[in-house]
Amino acid sequence: MGTTHKSFIREILRVTENPKTISFAGGLPNLKFFPVKEITNASLKVLEEDGENVLQYNTTEGYLPLREYIAERYRTKNGLTVDPDEILITNGSQQGIDLTGKVFLDKGDQIVIERPGYLGAIQALSMYEPIYQSIPLLGDGIDTDLLGKTFKGGGIKLFYTVPNFQNPSGITYSKQKRRDVADILEKHDAILIEDDPYGELRFIGEDLPSMGTYIKDNIILLGTFSKIIAPGFRLGWICAKKDIMEKIIIAKQASDLHSNQLSQRVIYQYLIDNDIDRHIMRIRAAYKKRRDLMVSMITEHFPEGIRCTEPEGGMFLWITLPERISSLDLFNLAIQENVAFVPGNAFYVDGGGNNTLRLNFSNSDETKIEEGIKRLADIIKTL
Amino acid sequence: MGTTHKSFIREILRVTENPKTISFAGGLPNLKFFPVKEITNASLKVLEEDGENVLQYNTTEGYLPLREYIAERYRTKNGLTVDPDEILITNGSQQGIDLTGKVFLDKGDQIVIERPGYLGAIQALSMYEPIYQSIPLLGDGIDTDLLGKTFKGGGIKLFYTVPNFQNPSGITYSKQKRRDVADILEKHDAILIEDDPYGELRFIGEDLPSMGTYIKDNIILLGTFSKIIAPGFRLGWICAKKDIMEKIIIAKQASDLHSNQLSQRVIYQYLIDNDIDRHIMRIRAAYKKRRDLMVSMITEHFPEGIRCTEPEGGMFLWITLPERISSLDLFNLAIQENVAFVPGNAFYVDGGGNNTLRLNFSNSDETKIEEGIKRLADIIKTL
Repeated sequence: MGTTHKSFIREILRVTENPKTISFAGGLPNLKFFPVKEITNASLKVLEEDGENVLQYNTTEGYLPLREYIAERYRTKNGLTVDPDEILITNGSQQGIDLTGKVFLDKGDQIVIERPGYLGAIQALSMYEPIYQSIPLLGDGIDTDLLGKTFKGGGIKLFYTVPNFQNPSGITYSKQKRRDVADILEKHDAILIEDDPYGELRFIGEDLPSMGTYIKDNIILLGTFSKIIAPGFRLGWICAKKDIMEKIIIAKQASDLHSNQLSQRVIYQYLIDNDIDRHIMRIRAAYKKRRDLMVSMITEHFPEGIRCTEPEGGMFLWITLPERISSLDLFNLAIQENVAFVPGNAFYVDGGGNNTLRLNFSNSDETKIEEGIKRLADIIKTL
Repeated sequence: MGTTHKSFIREILRVTENPKTISFAGGLPNLKFFPVKEITNASLKVLEEDGENVLQYNTTEGYLPLREYIAERYRTKNGLTVDPDEILITNGSQQGIDLTGKVFLDKGDQIVIERPGYLGAIQALSMYEPIYQSIPLLGDGIDTDLLGKTFKGGGIKLFYTVPNFQNPSGITYSKQKRRDVADILEKHDAILIEDDPYGELRFIGEDLPSMGTYIKDNIILLGTFSKIIAPGFRLGWICAKKDIMEKIIIAKQASDLHSNQLSQRVIYQYLIDNDIDRHIMRIRAAYKKRRDLMVSMITEHFPEGIRCTEPEGGMFLWITLPERISSLDLFNLAIQENVAFVPGNAFYVDGGGNNTLRLNFSNSDETKIEEGIKRLADIIKTL
């Protein structure tokens, strides 16, 4: 991993610590929608009913009723048949990526990622020193022609993808692209990691099938409660068939024995005592409003010649400036005006993306979106 | 890691799930002493006062006031000067071991561990495929003559030790051994991992200095709240100087972004609202009583020719049977009588220890200790 990636993040964290900063940088859900009262009630209930066991060591796989709940949701939401033993609770989906790398990657192994790609995955997988083949995203998903050719070249071990409202680009894979990707992966016996942190946050259009619909064995699905309940718990999951899962469980046990047991119980209690779908609908409506506002502010105030994705869900917009404008220059000027975002270069392992940037719309309230985009527009005009 | 290690653990987990089993197997603290009421109060307080922020993403390093508390405790309990920035909150000390392996170990690197050694460390480090040099423990710590010779041989990267009430042996390093180990490590510029999960659980004698007293830079101290508060939170910490810490933070961020934020806040609230030293004294007294009972039951009922450590603290006794008796045979007979322990072989990376076993005394109440040891004695007599 280049030091650029690290220093971007450090810089961004430092800047966003300033309460005056309008930050479109982080990938933060909006804390206004955290169900604090319901979580408090769930915590009380769990500690009162079974406090001692909740605070004891537990199994590596995680709390069985929670795994059953997740399996059942895969059935009803995604039409996938999943056994609870095919679910392992992790510390956010970030740990799911890490464990996958730990189990499957040796130094020098070749893997495919999206271009631009999710920075957290790049960070996690880079610890295992793979060689990246990064393949461009088109408007409807990865360039499958190039994906096919790359796999045909041989030696590719896995492909990491975020098919719904991708981070950073906001792009969603079409149904056809999902089938095509699955075909390529199956043909070359490689592993697909389908990371789906934002799938529940669809504002427009219809849900599209998980690639787990088309791939039987060699697929690892990653999920998280961070975007639909709250990220502070650090709870997500891995879903994989037995052969893969056995290896992942050993790696999880070696990494930290098991995930926080109290939080697993609290999340489960919250889920059975509340209407999660109604809660998600509230988040969706709020994020859609922010996305619409940000897109319309950009359309209105940014100069011509700037492209902006209009994602059907999730938390991010992706901006492409004219080629001659550097988003790093823009970043350096913007932080002086107390506006932050992530320069696109951070999402490219092989350089490039210098004229792109990622904007988060979930975490800011509407007046901040208005003010922040206006400030950005003014700076862009000076460039 | 041999499959023996994995299958032992699976078998033991399976057996101890049977409520009829008297288990001296796991390394479980006694749940009777979990401060459930106090944790409930702390949870309520934290969620009411700052619920939204507590449930949001946070910094990789962990909650600053908690890190300040840990640094201050190093000062008062261990006489060590530690800056809060030299503390990183981890998912139990198990993750501390994992992150150390991730940062420092490449396949084929040589590392020293104790013989017998802590199984969790063997599991965590084995993921990075090192070559183990396991050096025997004597009554007062590792065989420093052999340790010196091994380091002189060259190429040893690190040494992992549990100097207080070691797991599995119960052995504590003498002050002299600590100095000697530090001298050897400093001379050869290798890294010492001092894992101290049980240090606060001393029943007899005086606290001995951390090897951090003698080693300035190349030392990683691991600590945990699992044994003094509760393990279900999965919260521990790494303490290391800046150069090491910077690498560890990057590895932690790649692994899971940060540890559970709610639990960090709850533990901190618990610590400032309660008298932790009084709580620890209660645990110490209870565990000492159990240890004394287990030792006296063994002395009374086990046949002659069986050795048993008498640890000054911690949670484990280590039994050495006559050479011709296999503890695995004993294990297989014992589980039929619903008594479980860990056969010693599991703690040897190079084979050996076939006539040894580990007994946990913290997790069983007194009638179970009496009954379990009697049953074990009867079976041993038949061998």
